[in-house]
Amino acid sequence: MATKTIKVEGMHCEHCVASVERALSAIPTATGVKVSLERGEATLEVADAIPDALLVGAITGAGFKAGAVS
Amino acid sequence: MATKTIKVEGMHCEHCVASVERALSAIPTATGVKVSLERGEATLEVADAIPDALLVGAITGAGFKAGAVS
Repeated sequence: MATKTIKVEGMHCEHCVASVERALSAIPTATGVKVSLERGEATLEVADAIPDALLVGAITGAGFKAGAVS
Repeated sequence: MATKTIKVEGMHCEHCVASVERALSAIPTATGVKVSLERGEATLEVADAIPDALLVGAITGAGFKAGAVS
């Protein structure tokens, strides 16, 4: 498992936070999803086999803009 | 540009189709997004630099299950 932090642009309220949480939680193996409105970022743990692009895609698909993954 | 076809599971109605269309259309460089409820698949054109995992992530983030990408 790897812990990932992803910058998320475009979140304005707790509904946005919930959308991002739901999108990331749907990724296979994802656990411990936390999204911070204040910091504009999400953290989660996923299997090493999950590529960063999949995390970026999930955020994009939910209607937000994903920035750097670290 | 590359033309991609992605199997999408879990679409039940035109609202589902619209959600998948919106999710894929948000991917940078994506054009010509078409989603078929009958065939359970989406087609689009994206830049060669866009990894398949990003397409899968977009569908996952929108609340559907992505299958094979070809």
